[in-house]
Amino acid sequence: MRAFNYYAPTQVVFGPEAEVQTGVLVKKYGGTKVLVHYGGKSAERSGLLDVVCKSLEAEGIAYVKLGGVVPNPRVSLVRKGIELCRQEGVDFLLAVGGGSVIDSLKAISIGVPYDGDVWDFYIRKAATTTCLPLGCVLTIPAAGSEMSDGSVITNDEGGLKKDYCINEFRCKFAVMNPVRTYTLPAWQTACGAVDMIMHTQERYFSKDDDMEVTDAIAEAVMRTAMDSVHIVLEEPENYRHRAQLMWAGSLAHNDLTGCGTSGDWATHCLEHELSGMFDVSHGAGLAALWGSWARYVLAENPTRFARFAVNVLGVTNNFKDTNETALAGIKKMEDFYRSIGMPISIHELIGREITDAEIEEMADKCSNYGASTVGCLKVLSREDMVKIYQMAK
Amino acid sequence: MRAFNYYAPTQVVFGPEAEVQTGVLVKKYGGTKVLVHYGGKSAERSGLLDVVCKSLEAEGIAYVKLGGVVPNPRVSLVRKGIELCRQEGVDFLLAVGGGSVIDSLKAISIGVPYDGDVWDFYIRKAATTTCLPLGCVLTIPAAGSEMSDGSVITNDEGGLKKDYCINEFRCKFAVMNPVRTYTLPAWQTACGAVDMIMHTQERYFSKDDDMEVTDAIAEAVMRTAMDSVHIVLEEPENYRHRAQLMWAGSLAHNDLTGCGTSGDWATHCLEHELSGMFDVSHGAGLAALWGSWARYVLAENPTRFARFAVNVLGVTNNFKDTNETALAGIKKMEDFYRSIGMPISIHELIGREITDAEIEEMADKCSNYGASTVGCLKVLSREDMVKIYQMAK
Repeated sequence: MRAFNYYAPTQVVFGPEAEVQTGVLVKKYGGTKVLVHYGGKSAERSGLLDVVCKSLEAEGIAYVKLGGVVPNPRVSLVRKGIELCRQEGVDFLLAVGGGSVIDSLKAISIGVPYDGDVWDFYIRKAATTTCLPLGCVLTIPAAGSEMSDGSVITNDEGGLKKDYCINEFRCKFAVMNPVRTYTLPAWQTACGAVDMIMHTQERYFSKDDDMEVTDAIAEAVMRTAMDSVHIVLEEPENYRHRAQLMWAGSLAHNDLTGCGTSGDWATHCLEHELSGMFDVSHGAGLAALWGSWARYVLAENPTRFARFAVNVLGVTNNFKDTNETALAGIKKMEDFYRSIGMPISIHELIGREITDAEIEEMADKCSNYGASTVGCLKVLSREDMVKIYQMAK
Repeated sequence: MRAFNYYAPTQVVFGPEAEVQTGVLVKKYGGTKVLVHYGGKSAERSGLLDVVCKSLEAEGIAYVKLGGVVPNPRVSLVRKGIELCRQEGVDFLLAVGGGSVIDSLKAISIGVPYDGDVWDFYIRKAATTTCLPLGCVLTIPAAGSEMSDGSVITNDEGGLKKDYCINEFRCKFAVMNPVRTYTLPAWQTACGAVDMIMHTQERYFSKDDDMEVTDAIAEAVMRTAMDSVHIVLEEPENYRHRAQLMWAGSLAHNDLTGCGTSGDWATHCLEHELSGMFDVSHGAGLAALWGSWARYVLAENPTRFARFAVNVLGVTNNFKDTNETALAGIKKMEDFYRSIGMPISIHELIGREITDAEIEEMADKCSNYGASTVGCLKVLSREDMVKIYQMAK
């Protein structure tokens, strides 16, 4: 068990019609001129953007809008947002959308008070804790960005996908109305479930650190996400299970499921190169890689994988053969991914065979040309990365 | 499932020697002149108070000390603390101790900026959200006050025990070093475990609201507290299980285990009268009442009690007889309380038979002389209260 810091200050306002409280919340946290940041047409079409803007108007709060955030959000739009905020004298940032919109907004928040180019932070050329305050109206349960300290941005030039993490990125408030997720397409719903399960798994699969209460909570979050996604794929308007999925997504990434453990994060790193190169959904990319990663690292901590198999997936424990139990769990996890329409290999993900040259390029980027490693349960060198990509081919 | 607000902004710094960071944390949250509030001699004897004060000095932060907080903390000392803060120009409040010390400090925090008597808030004669900022160095895992919004104070005159709850009471930070709990006596350790289990149970036993992810987390917290307290009673210096117990205590009362559920809180209300009248430990008072409350209200939601029996206590589910499963769980819970040295009746708690007159007096106070009810799973009238006290006799 490790010492830990836990800090999850975001005020969560959860329930039907929660979004009408947005204006009051912005006011409470000091906003007088707001940037409303969002993605494509769905926030407009659904009427959500209107409801949010009206709630701002009702509190006498001025705002400007900036849409157009895409999955794997681009630094080019972030730069545009920074300019707009400066021109308009914005003092509070509001995301209406999912993880991509919130991540883009977080980048804007540190870019506005910074003299240089915002990408500097993501490539570790600069560091900061100064940012504009943020809030969000969440529409996609997946990335957990609404309570997390992280932001992942893709550079339009070269497809580099990088993260930056500071506690100041944590939203002041997160408005969550499960009803607003009824219209999410099945593919996006499933990708979101994978993302939250993986956020929990990355913290759960540690080398030798564990903490019973944390592990049991992590298992509860994973079981819930798996049960509820099955139901909402059948019944998109099932409030109870949309709500479970939404809350599980936040709990999966607000650090609660990692208190006292060291975490791994190799699958996330390996996937960032996949979605950077092929612009695929992060969740689908994670599903495509996880089984291969798991089999590759299993020997480092087979009892952990066996516990996962039994407590999360309901595998019958073979007390005489931990490895068999563990492998049955990995297989059952892949079966689950298939059952919600997710790929479990790279060729299913990108629709063709990946080339060896592409794998080498991803391993180069992921390992910083052999200079760095990823993972903690098993520390992965560039060579290990190539092997896992090959296994997942 | 209900709509909910979740707000747990306290920065938790958890691990061995965490207390050396206290000065840095006070500075971070703006403290320049601190009231250090504590209980009896144990904080002095253990050297903890010294370490904390030195960490303040290292940051150039001035402080005054006020000890003497007793279990069921008294409003008289709170008034003394308010005066002291005003005289000394204190701008940050620091508790070094358990729930009683933190609750006393919370009362001081709203009393300092208030013109009238601080007891006004506890008897609903006044309301406020204005208070001095608070932090704590926790030494007793039990009350969960380090992350909660509540404060319970006892009036020296008449033994009235009342609570006041505002989000502003939530500590800016909570320092938790499990090593500092090694010297807790067995009785206090056990009472603390009961308190955290009951904080979870009060949220778990709802009438018809439930939320799977919340319920599964609540079950994880209860199982952990039960497993770990058994071990630390045998091995007081077991770091792993002292740590589990400490973190479980915070999670039990920071509202995480109540997201989406309505909660009950009748046992707490009934117990407040017991500890108000007999000055017994809150945890022991809860253990003495719980089984009687549970049997009295069981019929309102037997499936909930059956789930508790199976998922928390490992009772074998009798699928044909929910009631039998539920009753086996209540029995097993009482067996657990006995196994950690807790009373499961009032006479075991106070060492003699309680009189009918005393029961009537408690029911009068608890029901505000018949004018109000407690509980939610079953709404309890004054008559119900008398019956439960009689069952628990």
